[in-house]
Amino acid sequence: MAPQASEQMADETKVRVALGDRSYDIVIGRSVLGSLGARFAAQFPGARAVFITDRTVAGLHLAAAEESLSAHGIEHQVLVMEPGEKTKSYDGLIKACDGVLDTRLERGDLVIALGGGVIGDLAGFVAGVVRRGMRFVQVPTTLLSQVDSSVGGKTGINTAHGKNLLGLFNQPHLVLADTAVLDTLSPREFRAGYAEVAKYGLINQPDFFEWLERNWQGIFAGGPEREEAVARSCQAKADVVAADEKEADQRALLNLGHTFGHALEGMAEYDAERLVHGEGVAIGMVLAHEFSARLGLCDPAVTDRVVAHLQAVGLPTHIGAIPGQLPKVDLLMDFIAQDKKVSRGNLTFILTRGLGQSFVEKGVDPVQLRAFLEEKLA
Amino acid sequence: MAPQASEQMADETKVRVALGDRSYDIVIGRSVLGSLGARFAAQFPGARAVFITDRTVAGLHLAAAEESLSAHGIEHQVLVMEPGEKTKSYDGLIKACDGVLDTRLERGDLVIALGGGVIGDLAGFVAGVVRRGMRFVQVPTTLLSQVDSSVGGKTGINTAHGKNLLGLFNQPHLVLADTAVLDTLSPREFRAGYAEVAKYGLINQPDFFEWLERNWQGIFAGGPEREEAVARSCQAKADVVAADEKEADQRALLNLGHTFGHALEGMAEYDAERLVHGEGVAIGMVLAHEFSARLGLCDPAVTDRVVAHLQAVGLPTHIGAIPGQLPKVDLLMDFIAQDKKVSRGNLTFILTRGLGQSFVEKGVDPVQLRAFLEEKLA
Repeated sequence: MAPQASEQMADETKVRVALGDRSYDIVIGRSVLGSLGARFAAQFPGARAVFITDRTVAGLHLAAAEESLSAHGIEHQVLVMEPGEKTKSYDGLIKACDGVLDTRLERGDLVIALGGGVIGDLAGFVAGVVRRGMRFVQVPTTLLSQVDSSVGGKTGINTAHGKNLLGLFNQPHLVLADTAVLDTLSPREFRAGYAEVAKYGLINQPDFFEWLERNWQGIFAGGPEREEAVARSCQAKADVVAADEKEADQRALLNLGHTFGHALEGMAEYDAERLVHGEGVAIGMVLAHEFSARLGLCDPAVTDRVVAHLQAVGLPTHIGAIPGQLPKVDLLMDFIAQDKKVSRGNLTFILTRGLGQSFVEKGVDPVQLRAFLEEKLA
Repeated sequence: MAPQASEQMADETKVRVALGDRSYDIVIGRSVLGSLGARFAAQFPGARAVFITDRTVAGLHLAAAEESLSAHGIEHQVLVMEPGEKTKSYDGLIKACDGVLDTRLERGDLVIALGGGVIGDLAGFVAGVVRRGMRFVQVPTTLLSQVDSSVGGKTGINTAHGKNLLGLFNQPHLVLADTAVLDTLSPREFRAGYAEVAKYGLINQPDFFEWLERNWQGIFAGGPEREEAVARSCQAKADVVAADEKEADQRALLNLGHTFGHALEGMAEYDAERLVHGEGVAIGMVLAHEFSARLGLCDPAVTDRVVAHLQAVGLPTHIGAIPGQLPKVDLLMDFIAQDKKVSRGNLTFILTRGLGQSFVEKGVDPVQLRAFLEEKLA
């Protein structure tokens, strides 16, 4: 069949995630979704596919994705999950695994994750375990998943014990990040993803953070700055992941704001009405800077600058901004202790010495942390 | 504390599974279980452990295993599952994952699988996904698991769609195969494991098969032939796995008798009263030889010799030996089609050109296969 007009990509950026024989490309650009079929046919000749998506995303983007596969004669089926974090659960896992097995696809066929972080994390897990591993493609449809969860191969579900406590490292074979689909996000969802973009600046790229301070309006408005922000974020994450895939050491930097953030999500019972992941990360990053300042590691003026930028884009920057009662310190400490970033009772946090000067601190004193949190919750 | 007397191992054999940075040792010998604590302390200093075992095995061998850890001051907890294939299920997976998370063990700690194939397959899966991967040790307590499932890293559970359809490749860090614990197996269970031992001869080691014909009594009686048989089997499997870990090609040889066998297990509804895995493999190996002979690939006299040996040890060698009604051909064909060893509608079987001359045949004609099965079921 004739290629679709939308396959003629003018502006796209490729970021290579270099992981030996598990290397893959992230293709970033406006409307790259239309090229899914052509790329799939070229990279996986003869293979079939099953989409895992959610009801919301299916309503918005599934038709375009299916058309693109059909135009290249690629057999495919669709598995539609409920939207929301609750899908990253034992129930969601079982439903998705059974659904993929129902399709009778084989090991050489592919799972295509079409959706945000929940769908990507779940589908990557499912692809990793059905028939002991099928290949998979990520088509992330939120800013958060484009710059974070679709890069690096972390997959998983939540359990009653906490977030992402079950899963595996499973690298996709291709990631297609269409920045035009982000136009369909709510402002709140877009902002939440932006927190992860800002994070890359705060980890170790002060120049990127400064660029964001100047260019965030273009990113939100869908200008070319958006592609650049996604590409720079993916590159930043790809560099870290390539150096330390399984988080033996430096990959932990990507958790800046996350240990606090996960605890806040936990205390908000993963209720997206109250707090979404990116908001938790935004507050968590501010807390990481404040805690660093309190430990005498970082100039308090840096915190002010971080707060100012996050506030400018409309992100929450303090625990009190979360609707509902303030959490008890004990509850937060308990969530922090259960976080995966704990080793031998020592708490590991990402702290910072200045703007874009984060580092992994494996010996955080629980007493100092508790005192800090008590003050924040007073 | 002073080392236990049982830690002074006189006769043990080590088989190295060479898989780069995932290489590990299989330690084989009478009473090596008593050395678990010493080995654990040496290989995983400071780590804690959780045993995953089943009620039956716990009653027989858990005390010895726990004592060995305690003697070296190793903190450990115990998770006891129901015995039987039904534990390799979604329910079993959830119970075991939650149980391991309940222990609050960390990523650097270990899961110890103490049991047969069911426990090993489940615990390996659980270890692979809890906190995105904990380390694990296999202490296989059946002949089947000592020579098969504890070597090579295949883990998984069954679903309504079939056996082992969910899982992952996850290599243990140490395997301890104590041949003395096999004394507690029922004759039927021991025989079932022996089918896999014979399989290694039939794959590509005619001399080993001949050795088995001469020495099987010693193996069953617990003489030194048993260690030798386990070690040669582990070595045979380790060689294949090292060459092709993820079953791209030659690892499929290990499936000799298994596509038929899995289908028979499926039609017997995985009811161990009617058929256990090794018995399915025994019948399946005979079918593979018969089918090879029917295709003109193999001298029928080879089948006779295989049947004679399997019968000598007391294994079933034909479908009619399975209690209950004979299966319908359609049902068997359906199970075979759903087997993981299917690619693009072609059936892959392990066939043979003679004693110990097996090969992977990827283009088996379903029409010929159906005709063959119809004849066997007539």
